[in-house]
Amino acid sequence: VLLGAGNVATHLFRAFSETEKVEVVQVYNRSKTTLKPFETLVETTTSIEDLVEAEVYLIAVKDDAVEEIVDQVKNKNALIVHTSGSVPLFSSAKRNGVFYPLQTFSKNAEVNFKEIPICLETSAEEDFVILKNLAESISEKVFSISSEQRKKLHLAAVFACNFTNHLYTIAETICQENQVPFEVLSALIKVTAQKATLYSPKEVQTGPALRNDQKTIQQHLEQITDADETKIYKLLTQSIIDYHGKKL
Amino acid sequence: VLLGAGNVATHLFRAFSETEKVEVVQVYNRSKTTLKPFETLVETTTSIEDLVEAEVYLIAVKDDAVEEIVDQVKNKNALIVHTSGSVPLFSSAKRNGVFYPLQTFSKNAEVNFKEIPICLETSAEEDFVILKNLAESISEKVFSISSEQRKKLHLAAVFACNFTNHLYTIAETICQENQVPFEVLSALIKVTAQKATLYSPKEVQTGPALRNDQKTIQQHLEQITDADETKIYKLLTQSIIDYHGKKL
Repeated sequence: VLLGAGNVATHLFRAFSETEKVEVVQVYNRSKTTLKPFETLVETTTSIEDLVEAEVYLIAVKDDAVEEIVDQVKNKNALIVHTSGSVPLFSSAKRNGVFYPLQTFSKNAEVNFKEIPICLETSAEEDFVILKNLAESISEKVFSISSEQRKKLHLAAVFACNFTNHLYTIAETICQENQVPFEVLSALIKVTAQKATLYSPKEVQTGPALRNDQKTIQQHLEQITDADETKIYKLLTQSIIDYHGKKL
Repeated sequence: VLLGAGNVATHLFRAFSETEKVEVVQVYNRSKTTLKPFETLVETTTSIEDLVEAEVYLIAVKDDAVEEIVDQVKNKNALIVHTSGSVPLFSSAKRNGVFYPLQTFSKNAEVNFKEIPICLETSAEEDFVILKNLAESISEKVFSISSEQRKKLHLAAVFACNFTNHLYTIAETICQENQVPFEVLSALIKVTAQKATLYSPKEVQTGPALRNDQKTIQQHLEQITDADETKIYKLLTQSIIDYHGKKL
């Protein structure tokens, strides 16, 4: 039984529909409107009382709504699992787990679930096998990640994605201020991401900071007019020098 | 005539070989060994004096060797062009230009030149057409970029690629310290880069800083043990808050 009808739930439903190993027997959602696209495909309900029996109840709702739903289904004799990266394992349910697909989902964008990492955790070891089978039926990248590790992963993702995207924003601003289409940087941005994930990012670091090329660094600093950008340039340059200097 | 036999020259030669619009009539390189792979494909020489006549002399050598080569060919009655992003336009040659493919090239990696942006500049407007034809014969992304713009582009690339890669390195370090495979973040990193280039990075910013979610930000800061990482987390978080706060 899938609980939720938002982005994550929709993409999960589609992925499970494509495998014969898993059957979604029911989709629950509070609002009937959101359930509409599911109605011709599967039994749906807006009432927790009408939930049918199932081996796993997969809760794919907003982070702050997870606990409330868990509370309502915790007495089921089944595995109660949520899909949220930032919510801990709930011990209130007898058998519980986390099934966290680490990806940002957009409503209509096609998703190749095979490549999406799914991070699993269960309180009981015997339940892990169930989640592992469930995850491996839709993804080739399944990992066992504890709540503690998931916290660190979230922190790492802030650096690798949120902060990275802000640096793209700064680059775009610099381009716009100089009538350079940001598109000129697209290929380089994508190759940088590909290389870092194919190899190890520390092995493929390039640029003036790595070479401790003070002449270029000074020229760059003279070109920056924004105070925040100056601070970021200085700090990241120094951090690269420190990190790779230590390594040598 | 192509001058140079390194990564950029090799990839350019391959790309030009695949189009009928351009003929590389000769490849020059100081060292005979490096010319070896070209010998069966085109006339080669190790001597500047033996250069044949051509419409364009394309200098694809290391940044600090460009000027020396330009000096040796500057009196040719032809367009003298270099491929370096960080070297200015040389007015020593009568007709001169820049043909700068904005990408990092690895020796053996296959390159789809069609998607590589080529930044062009010439002193004389009538020479621009020649370079444009040359560039469009191998790439679909051809831009007119002045020396001043190229400087800014280089600065923007430091933010979008060098600094970004350092953030990947920090994320990898956090993963390794917590026995989480960095691979878990691969899909997210690649999608972040794709989204930023497909849309505008400022439109797709996500994360606790964007929401000014101080609770999560504090939790993250408590988890960081490294002084540099703490500074970077604080500065980039504040910069995102400042940037997107102003926008609202």
